Amino acid sequence: MRLEKQLAYLDTHFDLFLNDLTQLLRIKTVSAQPVHAADMVAGANWVADQFRSLGFLVELSSSGGPPIVFAQKLPNPAWPTVLVYGHYDVQPPEPLELWHSPPFDPEIRDGKIYARGATDDKGQMLTHIKAAEAWIRSTGDVPVNLKFVIEGEEEVGSRQITDFFRNRQSDLACDVAVISDTSQYAIGIPAITYGLRGIFAAEVTFFGPSHDLHSGIYGGAVANPVTGLARVLGQLHDASGRVAVPGFYDRVRELTVAERAEFGSLPFDEQAFLDDVGSISLFGEAGFSTLERKWARPTCEINGLFGGYTGPGPKTIVPAQATAKITCRLVPDQNSGELTAALQAFFEERLPPGLRMEFRADHGCDPMLTDTESPYMEAASQAIERAFGRRPVLIREGGSIPVVATIKELLGVDTLLLGWGQNTDNLHSPNEHFRVDDYRRGIAASIALMGLLSPDSGMK
Amino acid sequence: MRLEKQLAYLDTHFDLFLNDLTQLLRIKTVSAQPVHAADMVAGANWVADQFRSLGFLVELSSSGGPPIVFAQKLPNPAWPTVLVYGHYDVQPPEPLELWHSPPFDPEIRDGKIYARGATDDKGQMLTHIKAAEAWIRSTGDVPVNLKFVIEGEEEVGSRQITDFFRNRQSDLACDVAVISDTSQYAIGIPAITYGLRGIFAAEVTFFGPSHDLHSGIYGGAVANPVTGLARVLGQLHDASGRVAVPGFYDRVRELTVAERAEFGSLPFDEQAFLDDVGSISLFGEAGFSTLERKWARPTCEINGLFGGYTGPGPKTIVPAQATAKITCRLVPDQNSGELTAALQAFFEERLPPGLRMEFRADHGCDPMLTDTESPYMEAASQAIERAFGRRPVLIREGGSIPVVATIKELLGVDTLLLGWGQNTDNLHSPNEHFRVDDYRRGIAASIALMGLLSPDSGMK
Repeated sequence: MRLEKQLAYLDTHFDLFLNDLTQLLRIKTVSAQPVHAADMVAGANWVADQFRSLGFLVELSSSGGPPIVFAQKLPNPAWPTVLVYGHYDVQPPEPLELWHSPPFDPEIRDGKIYARGATDDKGQMLTHIKAAEAWIRSTGDVPVNLKFVIEGEEEVGSRQITDFFRNRQSDLACDVAVISDTSQYAIGIPAITYGLRGIFAAEVTFFGPSHDLHSGIYGGAVANPVTGLARVLGQLHDASGRVAVPGFYDRVRELTVAERAEFGSLPFDEQAFLDDVGSISLFGEAGFSTLERKWARPTCEINGLFGGYTGPGPKTIVPAQATAKITCRLVPDQNSGELTAALQAFFEERLPPGLRMEFRADHGCDPMLTDTESPYMEAASQAIERAFGRRPVLIREGGSIPVVATIKELLGVDTLLLGWGQNTDNLHSPNEHFRVDDYRRGIAASIALMGLLSPDSGMK
Repeated sequence: MRLEKQLAYLDTHFDLFLNDLTQLLRIKTVSAQPVHAADMVAGANWVADQFRSLGFLVELSSSGGPPIVFAQKLPNPAWPTVLVYGHYDVQPPEPLELWHSPPFDPEIRDGKIYARGATDDKGQMLTHIKAAEAWIRSTGDVPVNLKFVIEGEEEVGSRQITDFFRNRQSDLACDVAVISDTSQYAIGIPAITYGLRGIFAAEVTFFGPSHDLHSGIYGGAVANPVTGLARVLGQLHDASGRVAVPGFYDRVRELTVAERAEFGSLPFDEQAFLDDVGSISLFGEAGFSTLERKWARPTCEINGLFGGYTGPGPKTIVPAQATAKITCRLVPDQNSGELTAALQAFFEERLPPGLRMEFRADHGCDPMLTDTESPYMEAASQAIERAFGRRPVLIREGGSIPVVATIKELLGVDTLLLGWGQNTDNLHSPNEHFRVDDYRRGIAASIALMGLLSPDSGMK
């Protein structure tokens, strides 16, 4: 499909597009800091005004937190509908003294725009609005039905978003979702993230005596809950790091030969990775590479453990209780509810005599795997190839993006995770930045994707 | 041996002896609280004056802390020499609101004298001074050579006592030591404690990444030190609670048939014990009774464990480190140095890949077992039988009394642990008390013991 007019509009208006990004970056939309409550509203209004100027139908909705911007442009009900999700809130900028230019006073140096939120997610999110603008200004309208949901609480747990999706389920109906809040694999290696790990959290406490006991007078005659908890936790994995909870791997979809080949073809510098984490060596499930372990294998991590005396020096007690905090990262097709129950049973069945236990689970999020053979993936790959000059690699991420699971659950569609930025853009750190070229190519890719998803793209 | 005169003196002067105890109990010798520094000196002087009035040679020595009172009366170098150890300092009295009468204003109710230190250790210690007084006032002198070491730092770790014993080793030479700082087995069941457990402390830390990592981005690819530490700690015991450190039991002296019979004959209320500790059931090494587990079997207790996030809610990290605090209680003939090394080797050999560790040991104290067949034990048993009307049972204690090991190491003699008080006397708690009858019988037993250890006792 020909996109000359749209791309020409991008070329001639890119300085303005960059200026718009600069304006948005000046608004201090730090969702974690109550002092910025008015800035949150200003940020939402700025985004809403962008949509209004393009003829979108715009709503701001809030149940107490920062407004969710919901914008729609639906040229033809028979056309495919694309839902774009993004967020206008940012991480706190602290520590300020480590920034080379002020976090809310954007500065372009060496082809990068430096500011809090430059890549996460103001710059990446804005690419899709600017792509719509290029289509509308150069052809009169967008070539697909577009719905945007841009929230202001992503960095603080998206407290309102699930209710919003549930309440507006029919208004949000779509064929595919798009989120640009991930990264390319590396500079020069654009990527589509087609898999995310899920997660669930649990906290288990073992109780022994009703109070700490003198270990001389009582030790040996009553069960020690710290010892007992360590004993059970020590059985969570086998020596190779494989999770030993019965049934844990039953639903794990093994990587295909093609996936392993794709991951194996990616450059990966083990020493740089080790320098980054500060561990003395790599460690993980036998038979898998580091990328496979991070992206496509489940984990059961003890995130915190405490019991008894934790001050300086020794204290001769049999402690009264001990607690472990655990999160399991899940991969397709594991189910968080099923495995929460399996973990609870694991502890209950191994609870040593003389102790009692409490198990508390937090709501989890299931893993996600996009169909890599779908026409949406093919369209996204072609769009990226046009904009970035090479076909994207297909990667996964080890983290979880709960809204992707929400979209799948409530709207029934897959999400295309199209990251335009780099892992090295200092997300959540001082001197966050976004490469100006990545901003431009992201807009170009989004222009192409809209075209390729339109009825007259020629794609099947 | 006939003791009519001495016991008659006790009878006629008991009110004065009780009055003396009351005077000592009024002095606020709380070693843990700096505000009582002058009271510590007053307490030491009060004790020293008791000895001076009886013609003892008295020294007060201090290397900065509360004075150690060293008093000697040596009628004949050819006679046996008995060393009595005790302490004039007391635990803090708080919480004051739980006392029914002020802790430093002694009050006799229902045949018990209530005050902080009544039994631990002012009352029990004073029995031996009063026994010497009864001998001296009724016969002109004591029937053995007597050396008393009464310190003021027992409740805060006896900081000066080891150096004192080391520096004055030859001056402290003796044939046997006596300490009354334990308890009878129960009311009506006097006891000699012939065994104590030893102890050593260790702290082990496992290190993984140099900083907490995002468990989504990194989890599965690097070793988690909390998981690793739990894995090794989980191997510290077998399922029956037996310590799994190689060689741990090699030197354990098994209980004799006679010891097991003696322990088995003692009344023991399991439900009362459970109500006291608040555990749901008993637990310990298979094949041993609760008393045997507490008194005569070694333990390896995790006293504290911490790593990663310990605040409310979940936190998705791979933690940087984890630490366990461990104390092992030892029984004859285990050696604290040897087993500290064994524990360190246990961790080093099991350290999971991808982690490093640090192991730090605290100085330990070896277990103690007095020869129950010695003439000293027989003399003590006969003395107690005369004063309490029945022969004492031979018991052990699960705790450690480091000065007993110091006396064994530096003076080469056994210690007779002759407890006159009761486990229920609220040691270290509000409303500490000492039964007036136990005070009187303790003095009588000490009078008898001095006689029975004298050359003309007729005992072999």
